[in-house]
Order: sequence, then structure tokens, then C-alpha cells
Amino acid sequence: MKVRITDGFWADRQRLNRIRTIPHGFEQLHRSGVLDNLRMAAGAEGCYQAYSDSAGTGLRFLDSDVYKWLEAVGWELGRAPDPGLAAAADEAIGVVAAAQRDDGYVNSYVQVLDGGKPHQNLAWGHEFYCVGHLIQAGIAWHRALGDDRLLSIARRAADRVHVEFGPGGRDGVDGHPGIEMALVELTRETGERRYLDLAARLLDLRGRGLLGAERFGAAYWQDHEPVRQAATVAGHAVRQLYLDCGAVDVAVELGDATLLAAVRRRWDDLIRTRTYLTGGMGSRHRDEAFGDPFELPPDRAYAETCAAIASVMLAWRLLRATGEASYGDAIERAMFNGVLSGLSLAGTAFHYTNPLQRRTSRTYEPPGYGERASWYPCACCPPNLMRLLSSWEQYQATSDGAGVRIHQYATSDIETGDIGLSVRTDYPWRGRVTVHIGRTHDEPWTLALRVPVWCRSATVTDPDGTRVVDPGAVALTRRWRPGDTVVLDLDMPVRITEPAPRVDAVRGCVAVERGPIVYCVESDDLPLATELEELSWDSGRQAVAVPRPDVGADIVGVRVPMTAPGHGDHLTAGAIPYYAWGNRGVSGMRVWIPR
Amino acid sequence: MKVRITDGFWADRQRLNRIRTIPHGFEQLHRSGVLDNLRMAAGAEGCYQAYSDSAGTGLRFLDSDVYKWLEAVGWELGRAPDPGLAAAADEAIGVVAAAQRDDGYVNSYVQVLDGGKPHQNLAWGHEFYCVGHLIQAGIAWHRALGDDRLLSIARRAADRVHVEFGPGGRDGVDGHPGIEMALVELTRETGERRYLDLAARLLDLRGRGLLGAERFGAAYWQDHEPVRQAATVAGHAVRQLYLDCGAVDVAVELGDATLLAAVRRRWDDLIRTRTYLTGGMGSRHRDEAFGDPFELPPDRAYAETCAAIASVMLAWRLLRATGEASYGDAIERAMFNGVLSGLSLAGTAFHYTNPLQRRTSRTYEPPGYGERASWYPCACCPPNLMRLLSSWEQYQATSDGAGVRIHQYATSDIETGDIGLSVRTDYPWRGRVTVHIGRTHDEPWTLALRVPVWCRSATVTDPDGTRVVDPGAVALTRRWRPGDTVVLDLDMPVRITEPAPRVDAVRGCVAVERGPIVYCVESDDLPLATELEELSWDSGRQAVAVPRPDVGADIVGVRVPMTAPGHGDHLTAGAIPYYAWGNRGVSGMRVWIPR
Repeated sequence: MKVRITDGFWADRQRLNRIRTIPHGFEQLHRSGVLDNLRMAAGAEGCYQAYSDSAGTGLRFLDSDVYKWLEAVGWELGRAPDPGLAAAADEAIGVVAAAQRDDGYVNSYVQVLDGGKPHQNLAWGHEFYCVGHLIQAGIAWHRALGDDRLLSIARRAADRVHVEFGPGGRDGVDGHPGIEMALVELTRETGERRYLDLAARLLDLRGRGLLGAERFGAAYWQDHEPVRQAATVAGHAVRQLYLDCGAVDVAVELGDATLLAAVRRRWDDLIRTRTYLTGGMGSRHRDEAFGDPFELPPDRAYAETCAAIASVMLAWRLLRATGEASYGDAIERAMFNGVLSGLSLAGTAFHYTNPLQRRTSRTYEPPGYGERASWYPCACCPPNLMRLLSSWEQYQATSDGAGVRIHQYATSDIETGDIGLSVRTDYPWRGRVTVHIGRTHDEPWTLALRVPVWCRSATVTDPDGTRVVDPGAVALTRRWRPGDTVVLDLDMPVRITEPAPRVDAVRGCVAVERGPIVYCVESDDLPLATELEELSWDSGRQAVAVPRPDVGADIVGVRVPMTAPGHGDHLTAGAIPYYAWGNRGVSGMRVWIPR
Repeated sequence: MKVRITDGFWADRQRLNRIRTIPHGFEQLHRSGVLDNLRMAAGAEGCYQAYSDSAGTGLRFLDSDVYKWLEAVGWELGRAPDPGLAAAADEAIGVVAAAQRDDGYVNSYVQVLDGGKPHQNLAWGHEFYCVGHLIQAGIAWHRALGDDRLLSIARRAADRVHVEFGPGGRDGVDGHPGIEMALVELTRETGERRYLDLAARLLDLRGRGLLGAERFGAAYWQDHEPVRQAATVAGHAVRQLYLDCGAVDVAVELGDATLLAAVRRRWDDLIRTRTYLTGGMGSRHRDEAFGDPFELPPDRAYAETCAAIASVMLAWRLLRATGEASYGDAIERAMFNGVLSGLSLAGTAFHYTNPLQRRTSRTYEPPGYGERASWYPCACCPPNLMRLLSSWEQYQATSDGAGVRIHQYATSDIETGDIGLSVRTDYPWRGRVTVHIGRTHDEPWTLALRVPVWCRSATVTDPDGTRVVDPGAVALTRRWRPGDTVVLDLDMPVRITEPAPRVDAVRGCVAVERGPIVYCVESDDLPLATELEELSWDSGRQAVAVPRPDVGADIVGVRVPMTAPGHGDHLTAGAIPYYAWGNRGVSGMRVWIPR
């Protein structure tokens, strides 16, 4: 299966990522000292940048920024060469190679600041976590380019973990999950079973209290209950979602139905009770944690960009494991909204948190909150966006013996075995998706297309004619011929969405959606002499989709009818896609509008 | 002016504080190692308990727990002797005395863990802050008992600060304000002007960026703008409120109208835009900070007990400085609701945070959140409650040349000069307050009574008859005679309160109040087979006040008419005073009820 996104919304995003965001990332890795930290681990002189505050808390996982960035570059160079990117990556790979010790260990924080003694602080150390990202980078370079430089570094680092923590070794888990899914992938890439076994062992050891409660409680790092037993997500959102990614991977490889069922149970509850309209997850700032069920404040939504990315990674694994279209819906919602809002339209500034409301009048924000920033001391999100966008074509479609399933809609070319398809669409702005059969073998096979759950009126047209289809997946099985065309038409009116009644924080409000896009109103788009905070939705008039060339080519906005005290009843506010918010300075913004 | 609360609501609370809470506090100071920390500063062997987590963040202000507890004991012993309390206090005073160095410096964290070098970390060190609490304890013992042991320790500690940071010395301020108000009090107690001058200097130095931005920004410790210029409160709530207490004290002593006006401006904005119905302040968990205007989530309200206490301290100073009754209203609201909710009905468990909603179904809480706890690693709130309750009679009334002003209502005896009054009331459960003139001189003087802002129908009866009075203060000037009686009748129906329209988080909800008491519904008090989260207020029926002997003697509850899907229209829920919530285990609770 090979997919190439060739034009349209996601091609633009991938191009921006390649020519702006990733080069910006390399500059920031330099400027922030993170590459120099690894140079110091290799013996260079310098001043280690752990961004510790005076209370003594340093960031111990900054190496992972380099690995995530390298993973993104691996996927990019696999798509097409770029001498500048390649040179930057060669420099970074050389730095990592030089930092690695003879025993395979590599972690600049421990090597420079902790006296070189590994694994003294599993709870906060992030040592496995960093190895996990190193593995993912190694796999990207090997899979995309056949380049095994990083993979061999990563294997030696993984072997070092295996020696100490593998079967018969020390019982220990990392405070931040993530290595588990990487180890499974490493087994897939190398054929060596012991990495998978180590991943399974780390999952089994979790939930036994090995990490202690520390300041945020054992649930913070999902150490309060065994992975197979915990009924709901808990604690730090990214940690939980990364952990469950590894759990699905292990479950699939070992055929462990109990483990898979546990993750699905948590996911179902998470979607039902703790997911923002934007696909954002994790409402609490203090410990970056999921809140209680239905605790979804729009203004104080933490909704970390990394959590939305992690939800895409987990939904993708569940989609692969179960084939259910609802996981594709979740990926779509997160990608078009809660993930993409993390990246500025120009590609060089980020949101770490992705609230659904920002008041026009605000008080002083702590650094890194509120406005978009070009980088962060804790810069986990920017390179995470880079690697996801670089590999986004991998999430579009799957194939198996029965045929091809298309999960996400982008103008793209899809090749698998004897079958070649091309997809043409103006998604997400228009609801028509056309699939041309370019090449095919002579046997019958199934072309399955996801019908998004938001679509209340859809038709599919194949050589037999047109018929209405329900949300879910429409499966078209036939003896396809080159030149056949399938058209999926998804009606895409503006939708006025009511919140679930138990979401206290947005009671009495509505949101505006169209297709997969969630909209927001920014104070920049209000009529003169009105304030965002005094506006209410006027249910007596229609919301209308309108072009918004000022925000970006092709972008469809919505004119939302509003009322406000002291104004006539002809107010409208121009809503823009949520992902595009915060690109015009310090405006107020809201997704949920009072009725 | 001498006030003694003799019976009723507040007498019960003061008695509980004396016989349960304060002894419990001494036990916890022992058990938590905080007293032993000071012993180590004096040279004892041991293991310093800074409650640092693995990330290396230790609590540097634990000495202040001892000082706050000692302040409470000072006030208690001044009211009546108690050999047990006195012995415990003697032990603690001895420990502090032994810990103090010859140069006057005393701070166990610095002496034990920081190599004994003072003032190396003004931003996070809390060294001035601890001296401030030591001064307040010293003043309490001196004022209440004429015992100068602690005061002389405190003066030497203050002198040590003055030598280094006084006029002509080093420019520096503490990351946590608090010493400023203590220094003014020290001048008032000792007559030595230099402490006041040091306080004024510390205020002048603030807002110049001396502390740096660190992780939460300069506003976190109110170092972003000069104290005279900042238009609104900002940052850490307790820090801001303690700072403004010192600012009022300095303004009053120096006749600095600009400084007083700045504090009043901030206070007015704070009350209008950032104060919970319960008087709680500071909505954000992450940095314990005020939120944006109208950012008042009920579920994630931080509303630290210490912030409510600090608001009482500040409102009291503003009441003294201006004479305006609205400050007495603010004190009343905070005391009966957001302060008292921090203390269990049994007096030995606490709430650090005071949310206005707790969902019935919850996930895993980090330690110290959610349920009441008998103590905390960061135990600032419990001894703060103790010292406030021990000195609560000091907030009841004031006198000046014109007469006597009664600000808070409790059954009490008030003596000032030739005048002796007794107040009799069943407040807050009944709205009648009777003031008997016991002794008086022969000249005319004014008896002023606060008419609470919540009261929409009040009358006052004096020897001239009965008349209707408006909220504010009613001033009765006459030649009083012994035996005269004044009766204030405050009508106290159940009130259904709508939130301000800009408070997004409780849109479409109402709250129940009666007199000064805010009510809440706990899931324990619901009809069988109903869930707190499915109930709505039924505006078609009346809410009715009812006795709640199950919650406590004299307590008045409210039966709130409710509707719920699938139930008839005869549901009611028994609301209890908010301050009494969380005393029956893990129930759900809400103050704001959906309409």
C-alpha cells in the first residue's frame, strides 16, 4: 500500500510542513540548545539547557525533540529528496551517534547532569520514552529510505533497555509511556521478537505501583490499575493515549483479545465523556490530565496538541485492529480541528494548548499560554506535528485480501499490488469524493469508503447507479475495470450543534460545524461596536456558508446570525474554521456560542 | 475595643477551633516533621521534610505553618488559659528560639538544606514570607498575653531583613508577599518606624522585574507592574491579596491616597469580575491564579481556602481605611461560605480547594484534591483557618470618636471605653439582631449597624420606633441610655440567584441563597433513583427553608423543587449550606443548578 497526497488541503499542509515547519524546527533545535545537549553528552563543552526553573525542575526529555524531528525528516526524504534537509538531518544523526555510549545508552540529561547513571529515576526520567522516539525515527529512516544509521543506534539503545529490564531483569516502567509501541514496531521492522516481549512485559508491569504516587497520584502515569483492568482513561492524557497505543500494538501481535477489549472500553468512554468537539482531549492544566466525565471547559481546555496527535495514533491502531469506521471519524475530527489548530497558517508558530474559548479581555498569561509561540522550552508538540503531517498519507487507506478501504479523503494516488486508484476531492470544503480505478486485477474486490458520522445525507454512485448510504462504511464489491469511477457525495450543510446535556460548561450554547470542520468566531470578525462576549446566536435566521479568501484560498467560512443587547436584529458574525484561529494576534475567540 | 463572642454560630466555631482544630494542628506539626525541621536548624539530627518530589521541588515555607499555629494559640490563650495548649506552644516557641541564629536569621530550609546562606533565592525562597508570619505570631502573643518571647525572636528576624534590605541596602523583594503587612503591624506594636519604612520600600520595589518571569510569568508574583499602577489583580491569588493587605496598611500609616486608591480599584474589579458566589477567589489550578474576567468555572474552581482568608484580611483593612459597608458584606460572604467550607464540621479535616461543583462520577484525583484531608504536605490552609477563627471577634466591630460600628453579627459582648453593648442573635439562621446598651456615657454617640446587601427588606427599631432601612449602614445617633435596645430585622427569604451573564461556566443555572448562606445540593440528599447530574431546578414551585438537624443543630436547609427526565414533577432536593459540603464522604455536589 502506497499513498501519495497530490493536491488540495492536505497536500498544501504537507508542503508547508516540508518547506517551512521542519526547517524552522531544525533552527529551533539549534537555538534552544537541544542539539548542543547531545553534543555535550558526546563530550563537548557547553551549558546544558534543561530549562530548569529555580525550584530545580529540569526537563529530562529534550532529546526526544531531536528524534521526533528526525522521524519527520525521514518520512519527507522518503517522499522526495531535499539536499538541505538531508544535510541538516545528517548533522543531527551524527550528533546522536556521537552521544551514544559504547554500552548503547544515550540520554543527554543523564549523561551530562545525572552523573551518567542510567535508570535512577524511572518516574520522571523519561529515559525509555526517549528511546521510544529514537526507535520511531530509526524505523522511519529505514522504512522510507533504507538508511539504517538511526535504526542501528536505536537498536543498541533498545538492547540496553532490554538487558536491564527484559524478562528476568529488573521490574520497572517509565513514568511516560511511549516505548511500548516503538518496541512493537521494532519487532515488525527487524523481525526480532524480544522487543515485542519487552513491550508486553512493560505493559504487564504497569499498574502495580512501581512508580509511586508522587505529587499527582499514581493515576497520573496510569500506574494505579493494571492496563487490562482500568475501565476508564485517567491521569496525564498523552501518557494514557501513548500507553494505549502500545497496548493495541501488543494485543494485535499477541492476539490478546482481553487487552484489546480493555483499550476499546477506555476509548469508547473517552469519546463519550471526555472529548471536546474539536477532538481535543485532556481538560486540566495542572497535571495535563483528563478531567472527570463531562468536565470539558471551553476556556480552560488544556487539549494539548500532543494529546490530539496521540488520539489520532490510537484511533488509527484501533481502526487497523477492528476495521470500524468510527475510528476514522475520530481521526478526521481530531486532524481537521484539534491537531491542526496547533500549527499556525504560516507554519512556524504553534499552540501547545487548544482552548475552545479565549476571552477578548484577558489578564496576564504565563509564558507559553495564550498566544501562538515559535517554540517552547517544553517543545514536545511542534516536532510531533511535523512527524504526523510527514506521515499523514499513511493514515488515508488500508488494503487487505478483500480490497481497499479509504478512511480519509484527500486528492491522492493509491497503489497496492495490482490495484491503482486515484482520489479527487475538494474536501473538506466540498463533499464530493471521486475515486477512479486506474489499474486492477480481474477478480472481484471491495472498495470500502467511510461515510462520516456527521453526514446526514450521502449517496454513492458506482457503475450500477446511485444509492443513498448511511454513515459508517459503504462497501462496493464487484469485478472492477480500469476506468470505473465511484463518486461519494456527502451533503455538507452548515450544522448547528448542541452540546451533550451533561457538559456543564457549555450549557445553553451551540456550535457551528460544516462537514468535518468545527467553526469559531473571532472578535476580529465581528461587526463594529460589538463585543464577542455580548453576542448570542439568533436561532430565527439561517447560518450561511461563505468563501473566506482573507483567511486562505478555498477556505469556507460561515456567517452566523447573532443578536446583542442594544443592537438591531441583523447582526452576523463571520465564523472561521477553528484550526485557523489565533493567526491574527490577540483576538477573542469562541466555539460555543450562547443561544 | 474588646469583643467576646459568647454564643451561637460563631461561638460554636471558635470552641471547635480551640478544642479540636488547634490541638489537631499541633499533632500534625509533629507528625509531618515541620517542628523537627526547626529542631534540625538548631542542630538536631534528623531527616529534613521538605516534601520534595523527584523533580526536586521542595517546599521552602513550612516554618510558616508553625508560626501560624502559634499565632492562633496566642489569641486563644489571650481569651482564656489552657494548660495543654500553653505547654504545646511553649514547646514550639522553644524550638523556634533554639533555631534562630545569633545574627537573628531563622529559616529551617535555608539553614538545613541551603548551606545556611540566606536570601540566595528570593523568588522561591519565602524567607521574608516566613518572617512575616513569625512577626504576626509574636504580635499575637504580645498583644493578647503580654508575652514577648516570640516578639523578640520576630524583631531580631525582622532586624536581620532590615539590615540587608532596608533603605540603602540591597534591592530585593520576596516571591511571596506577606511580610509587608506584618512589618506595619510591628511598627504599630513597637512604635519603631523603620519596619514601616521597610514595608513601604518593599512595596515600591515590586513591579520592577526583580523576581524574573520564571515559569509562570512576572504577574504570578505581582512583579509585572508597580503596586500603585496595576489596574487589576493578577497572578497567584494569595500573593496578590497579601500584597494588597500590606499596601493598605502602608497607605493608611503614610496617608498615601494613591496607593489606597490603587488597591480599591483592584478590589472593585476583583469583586465584579473574578469572585465566586461563595466569596472564593482564584479559579486556576495550575498557578493558583486569578483567571480572566468572568472565568469562574464551578467544577474547577481552585478557590483556595487561604485566598478566601486573605480576602477577609484585605476587606477588613479596606473597611477600616474607608468605613464602607460593602467590605463588611464581602467579609460576611467569604466567612460563611468560601472560608468555612475549608474546615470540616468535626474540625479536623480540611479543603485546600473549594469548588462549587463536584461530579458524582469522578476519576482519580491527585492527592490533596477532592476529598477532605486531615493535613497536607503544603499545609498553608489549616493553620490559616485556625488563626482567623481565633481572632474572629476582632472583625466584629470598630469604634472611633463618633461611636460604635457593628460589622458582623454574632451573639457577643462589646466593650469600648465607657460603652458596653451586648448583641443577641440567631444569625445566620434568623435575621433578628438585638443590641442592648449596657453601659454608656452621657454624650450622644452613633451606633452604626451594617444592613447586608443581600437584604431586600430590613427594619430597625430603636427607642424612637421602627423604620425601614436600605442596604449599607444604618447610623443611629442619640444620647443613649443604659437599657436601650435596638433591633435590626433582616428579612431572610430563600433567594434564587442568577449568575452574571458573562460568567460562561454557569450559564442557564441558578443558585440558592438565604441570608448570608450559599446553599448546595449534595447527591446524598437526592430522592432515590435520581442522579445529581440529571436534575434541573423547577421554577414553577417554591423553594422552602427547612430545619436540617441531621447536618447540625440549628442548621437551616432548603428544599429545592427539581425536575428530571423520567420522574414526576414532585421531586425536591435538600440543599444544605455550602460550607457544610463534603462531610459525608464522596458525594457529588453543586451550587449552580441548571434551570
